[in-house]
Parts: sequence; structure tokens; C-alpha cells
Amino acid sequence: MALRQKIAVLIGGVGGAKLALGLANLQPTPQLTFIVNTGDDFWHLGLKICPDIDTLMYTLAGVVDPQLGWGIADDTTCVLAGLRRRYAIDTWFKLGDQDLALHLLRTEAMRGEVSLTDFTSAIARRLGITATILPMCEAEMPTTIHTRDHGEMSFQEYFVRRRWQPVIQRVRYGSRQAASVPAPVREALAKADLVMIAPSNPWLSIAPILAVPGMRELLAAASAPKVAITPVIGGDAVKGPTAKIMRELGLAVSARTVASYYDGVIDGFVDDLRNPHFSMDGLRTTRLDTLMTDLERKVAVAQDTLDWARGWVS
Amino acid sequence: MALRQKIAVLIGGVGGAKLALGLANLQPTPQLTFIVNTGDDFWHLGLKICPDIDTLMYTLAGVVDPQLGWGIADDTTCVLAGLRRRYAIDTWFKLGDQDLALHLLRTEAMRGEVSLTDFTSAIARRLGITATILPMCEAEMPTTIHTRDHGEMSFQEYFVRRRWQPVIQRVRYGSRQAASVPAPVREALAKADLVMIAPSNPWLSIAPILAVPGMRELLAAASAPKVAITPVIGGDAVKGPTAKIMRELGLAVSARTVASYYDGVIDGFVDDLRNPHFSMDGLRTTRLDTLMTDLERKVAVAQDTLDWARGWVS
Repeated sequence: MALRQKIAVLIGGVGGAKLALGLANLQPTPQLTFIVNTGDDFWHLGLKICPDIDTLMYTLAGVVDPQLGWGIADDTTCVLAGLRRRYAIDTWFKLGDQDLALHLLRTEAMRGEVSLTDFTSAIARRLGITATILPMCEAEMPTTIHTRDHGEMSFQEYFVRRRWQPVIQRVRYGSRQAASVPAPVREALAKADLVMIAPSNPWLSIAPILAVPGMRELLAAASAPKVAITPVIGGDAVKGPTAKIMRELGLAVSARTVASYYDGVIDGFVDDLRNPHFSMDGLRTTRLDTLMTDLERKVAVAQDTLDWARGWVS
Repeated sequence: MALRQKIAVLIGGVGGAKLALGLANLQPTPQLTFIVNTGDDFWHLGLKICPDIDTLMYTLAGVVDPQLGWGIADDTTCVLAGLRRRYAIDTWFKLGDQDLALHLLRTEAMRGEVSLTDFTSAIARRLGITATILPMCEAEMPTTIHTRDHGEMSFQEYFVRRRWQPVIQRVRYGSRQAASVPAPVREALAKADLVMIAPSNPWLSIAPILAVPGMRELLAAASAPKVAITPVIGGDAVKGPTAKIMRELGLAVSARTVASYYDGVIDGFVDDLRNPHFSMDGLRTTRLDTLMTDLERKVAVAQDTLDWARGWVS
């Protein structure tokens, strides 16, 4: 294994960002590439918004709102107040002014034919982030939620406006345009010493990445071990709708369900000490304390996962 | 003349807005249609910005910054601060957060194929404005400034970024797309009892309106008297670069120069008491106190101009 380990991480929003921060604080710092879900991306008030990319960037730059886990700390909402007060706009999606500044730049760049990949790299550098942050693809692949009682709705309609309360029947990952895996993602997967799947929501954050045409094949072709970390701890998700969705889809809320969901993609699984033991054919597993309550714990989960995978490979 | 007089006003930015406020405060209120210069419009940070329309709307809605004469009173600049601080963006064009809210809505509307005319009407209504505010045309007709020492530049580059300091050699009014007079403007001119040209900068604010293909012909065909109010008082402009531009173009800084510039367009001219008397063939003139220092004076100038034109027509 190379002196400076190359790690490619499939990752979503707030949950994944915790692991990302742990990885970024390892000593020595691995060469990190985050392949980020853009299924949540949407256009709002004429702005191109990429929630998962931004959450990751703000987290790694140390400017994220520590309470929310997304948005910028101590941000104001003057523009939103103006929209609501003067023009009676329904401001259900919270957009801080500092956050809006980034959306303005992104929208301008993308209208000007700059790729999301290039824009993201430039902003990450500007924010002082040394890790590489890559969108899963350039094409728009909006995740659509089919609900039991309210029909089909966009991801943000489901997740933010309705606070993930509707009962999910099916999640659809689709692209309006022809989507493909961008060259830098392809390269990162090919060169990785380790591929990780962050403990993000498998159905909402990781599945959209796996749905990019060609992504599963690239993962299968990658020589590195591919390890997922459980988002289920002690029979529940740490945060967000993961457990609720599993129940609604008729699945057992367990690490095994997650591991099965990643069948054919991963060859290693980091389970949590609190979960009941399980084994699956052809899948290496380990049981660690995966709860990431503070920076120390985030670093520990990153380090323990790496140590395990390192021992396993050598 | 109709009981409720129909007045169509060709108008630019801050200077013109003073007269607009005077007209809007007349008793009884005339039926007002403002045909607004959009030669200053530009795209900035991905936003479609219409400075003259906004200045007029904010003025008539009573929310304009009273010191600046443009922008919104007590506005914050949080987004701009974010752009400058986090992303090192050169924020030479001041955009308040409340102001930015409108630009966001406009940009979204126009990307969605709403016309500038329809968008402006909707916002004016929302701001409680009863007058009709119409852009001079739908197509983009950006005014370009040819300077002696710095070559060609966009209007905002000249006016805001360089604070109208470069010496002007020529001003060009052009359209990238095929431009024409919108139907509501056509109708307003045809039905007007009086057409006024506000005391805006003739070269920067009124000329772009006259340059819309068909506009001069429509004015010539309009049966109403067409009256301009001098922007030159006592050998200088009240504000802005009008006098400076006249000197740079080799013209005498006088009301006569302005009247000559409007030759073929107007048949009446309201001069200021402070200016030396002049007469031109075929042009009716009057001399009034045209200085609009407060609301009372704005109303007086509007009323005096109307009274003069009324007496002249009957």
C-alpha cells in the first residue's frame, strides 16, 4: 500500500460528513477523494443548490453550523426575509445569506458552462480544503420519492418541506440527461487503495451514486477493498429517516439489511458493537464503536476502519 | 382631455424618479405609464439586474434609500460580504440583500420565459404601485460607452465601477437581439394625453429608449403633446454626469443643447427659470422652477408642467 494512502469515499450529507471530518483529521492525512451524492441537487429561486456537496465542503472547511450540521455557522437570512416580507414568497427551504453567496457563484458558473466538477474543485480550494470533492456525475439525476399518500415528489419536497414524514413506497433515481461517471471519479476509483461507503442513508444518499450508469461496474473493476460503515446502530439510525424508510420498505432495521443492500458492491462491512452479530457469504465484517459524537470519535472511526482494512489487505 | 389624464413618461434612473414621485402624488392622480430605460440592465453574479426599473419601483413604493436615491432603505449587504470574504469576489456593484431578493425573483422568472414586462407589472403591484411601469423593450439593448482612454466598456463598468470618470467619445445603443417596442408601450403612447420626457440624462437614460427600433416613429405618430423637462439647471446638471458628458461630446452645457438633442421628438420644452432664455423654431417653451429638492417641489414641477401643457393644448 502506498505511503500516502488513497481513499475514495462514496458519501452523502450530514451523516457522511462526520466520517469525512474524521478522515480529514487522520495523521498522516490520507489522499482523500469524496464522491458525493448529487441526487438531492435542485433548482430553487433560480439557484442551483447542491446540499450534499455544500454540507461536506462547509464541514471540511470548519464553517458548518454545528447545531444543524449543514449551512454556515452564524449565518443571517436577510435575503430570505426580504423574499418573504416584500414578495410573499414561501421560504420553506432555509437559505442563509453566506450560503446563498455560494449558490449565486455556482449558478453563474454553470450557466456559463463551467462543469460542476470544476466549480466544486475551485470553491473547495478557496475554502482551504485539501481533500478532493467530486460530484457523482455532471448530469442532473434528481432523486424522486414515491409516497403512499401524496404521490410522487421531489427529494427536497419530501425531505425538507415535508420533513421526511410521508410514507415512502419507492425511491427512483433517474437522469433527465444522459449521465455518466466523470473522468476524475473514474480515476479516483481506479487508483484507490481503499473505497469506503460512508454511513450515509443507503436509499437516499448512496443509492443515487450507485445509480450513475457505469458506477457499479467501475466499483466492481476497482482493485481496492470496498468497505461500508453501518448507518444503523443499536436498531436505529443515528439521525434522519434511514430506519423509518427501512420500515416503510418492509425491511428489518438492521445492519444486515444494509449489508444486503450493498451486496455485489462491497466486500467488507464495518458493523457497530451495539448491533447483533451477523455474517454473510463472501463479506468480511468487523464490529467497532462507530458512533461519531465528537471529533475524537470521528477520527477514531476513520482510523479503526482503516486499520481493519489495512490488516485485512496485507 | 379625459377626466383622468393619461400621461406616458420616458424615464431613466434617479433623476427621473424624482419627477415620477411628483406625478404619482398629484391630486387627482393621473393615469401614469412609465416607459423605462433598460439600456443599463446587465447580468451580474448570474443575476438579471434592471437598475432604472428598480430605482423607479423602489421610489414609487416608498422604500428607496433616501440618501442614495437607489437601492432599498436600511438594506443589509450580508450576501455581498460573504462573496467578498469567503470567495474574494470583487463586489464593485453594491447589491443589498433586500434588493438581491428582487433580482433572484426576476432572474428565475426570466429564465422561466416570463417577459420582463409581465414580471415588472407583477412586482409593481406587489409593492403597491398603482402606476404602470413598462420596460422600453424586451430584448437586451445594452448601452456601450466608448471612452477616450480606456476603449469600449459596458454601461455599469463606466457608471458604477469607474464612477463615470472616463472621458466619453461616443455612446452606442445597440441590441444583441431583434428589439421592438412592446405592445403595452405602443398602446400607452397611442392613448396618452401627454407624453413627457423626464429630466433624466439625455445621452444615458433617454437616448436608449429612443433607440428602440420604431420608438421615434411611434412618438411622431402619437397625437399627444410631447414635452421634455430640462435636466440642465443653471449651467450644470443637478446630479450625475450629464454636464460632464456634454462637455466631452463638445456640446455647450445648456438647456438649448438638450432641446436640440430632442429635435424631432418633442414639441414642448420646460426650461428652468435659472437658465438663459432661448427659442427654437417649432418648439413651445416655458420657464419654471424645475429644481426638485423635496416632495413638495417634485409635485410642483409635475403640476406646473401639466398645467402648462393643459393650457397649451386647450
